[in-house]
Amino acid sequence: MKLIRYGQAGAERPGLLDAQGVLRDLSMLLPELGPAQLNPRTLAALAAIDATRLPAVEGTPRLGCPVGGVGKIVCVGLNYADHAAEAGMQAPAEPVLFMKAVTSLNGPNDEVRIPPGSQKTDWEVELGLVIGTRASHVSEDAAPQHVAGYVLANDVSERAYQIERGGQWVKGKSYDTFAPIGPWLVTADEVADPHALDLWLEVNGQRVQNGNTRNFIFGLPKVISYISQFMTLEPGDIVLTGTPAGVGLGQKPAPWFLKPGDVVRLGASGLGEQRQVFVGG
Amino acid sequence: MKLIRYGQAGAERPGLLDAQGVLRDLSMLLPELGPAQLNPRTLAALAAIDATRLPAVEGTPRLGCPVGGVGKIVCVGLNYADHAAEAGMQAPAEPVLFMKAVTSLNGPNDEVRIPPGSQKTDWEVELGLVIGTRASHVSEDAAPQHVAGYVLANDVSERAYQIERGGQWVKGKSYDTFAPIGPWLVTADEVADPHALDLWLEVNGQRVQNGNTRNFIFGLPKVISYISQFMTLEPGDIVLTGTPAGVGLGQKPAPWFLKPGDVVRLGASGLGEQRQVFVGG
Repeated sequence: MKLIRYGQAGAERPGLLDAQGVLRDLSMLLPELGPAQLNPRTLAALAAIDATRLPAVEGTPRLGCPVGGVGKIVCVGLNYADHAAEAGMQAPAEPVLFMKAVTSLNGPNDEVRIPPGSQKTDWEVELGLVIGTRASHVSEDAAPQHVAGYVLANDVSERAYQIERGGQWVKGKSYDTFAPIGPWLVTADEVADPHALDLWLEVNGQRVQNGNTRNFIFGLPKVISYISQFMTLEPGDIVLTGTPAGVGLGQKPAPWFLKPGDVVRLGASGLGEQRQVFVGG
Repeated sequence: MKLIRYGQAGAERPGLLDAQGVLRDLSMLLPELGPAQLNPRTLAALAAIDATRLPAVEGTPRLGCPVGGVGKIVCVGLNYADHAAEAGMQAPAEPVLFMKAVTSLNGPNDEVRIPPGSQKTDWEVELGLVIGTRASHVSEDAAPQHVAGYVLANDVSERAYQIERGGQWVKGKSYDTFAPIGPWLVTADEVADPHALDLWLEVNGQRVQNGNTRNFIFGLPKVISYISQFMTLEPGDIVLTGTPAGVGLGQKPAPWFLKPGDVVRLGASGLGEQRQVFVGG
């Protein structure tokens, strides 16, 4: 299934995309697509619906982050060797973790706001996963059972704030609108191999990132199991799994960053596409 | 007012402490003490109640974190010069920010779980503030208006996870139970000067931390204003403002850390006390 939250920001309704790509309303069945709905039983019940008999949604509404009520966004840093190299960092011996504030969540095609005075706002296409069941001290073998599904994400990052302003990355990762997620939450059963997904990102039509999740340093079972040793992952939590090479910070011969008016498009195999206009903060 | 959430973990009810120290039930008026209730209008209405006419709560129930539905926990690192020195760090030129996972929240007197295998679980008494109104790009002058009240907090920290396991502090700050908050949320009107509060902490009866918020490197208006440039603070968000000297990492002649069975007591002027038994994870 491809699950969607659509409508005005803060008042999104649940929906799903049918096999013909028509957006169908789910709001008569579910109040939300969030922690209380992403469990295996509810997802199985949704999968039993003949989606074509649900009402089609008129027009082309705004899409929101496909998960509501997100408790936390846990991110893996430097999870592709080529990106670690371009960032001037060594490939890590164990996963690097950081967080983005939940207030940074944004719809997949919403405008992204460059903070006032920012000179180093950057892009990062990533595979995200959404937790479906509580995960604490889980093994790598058990880890995949805790995944409700996958999402496309842009881990927007202000490099000066991240690196030059006092040492902890969260400062450069958390500005409002810095976490576009979606368009869909693709349930885990529809992603045959999450370690074989192409990821790409273009700035103003120029391809800058071309990666594949087969190049993860730490695969998803390791990432989930590892995080769960340090904190409990709960339904609706989002894990961003790292970005491949090609971010602005890594451009040759010199880094370049986003400015108002720039348009970023990104996508991942089977997870859809995003398009963001970057605007002044 | 001293606002309280009492009852079993996950099913806390709102209450308040009357002038005689009797816990009174508020659940017939409010469903929760959280983001929707911490605004100035609701707090003013609560202040208009003759608390002695509310039903007294029987017995001595467990106390929970006095804020429900916390969206994020933003922490200031190294905000006392004596603590920065003991940690072997320079006093920062601007606030160091990091986050704790919201899943680390705990009642003030609940057991704290030492993670399996942990050798460096440490304590940090802190003044916390709770946001009452949305704060984005606020000035230092306007910052105090966004504070609903103050809380006592123990920013429990696993130093090996924080410092030796890949570079971002969140990994050592986020274990379940690592954020005891309370016993009360003391509304801002009852704290005459939040920059003149004694903070203390004892391990097994031995006083290890003795500080005062007058020794902040960055005062609260600066901290709030600063954070609000990097992310939006929302009602119910908790800001932890840093710890004074005397943590386990800073003990002389050698650091020492918590082990199962240790009892930690801490307090702050007017904000009450906490008592935690540390147990194996």
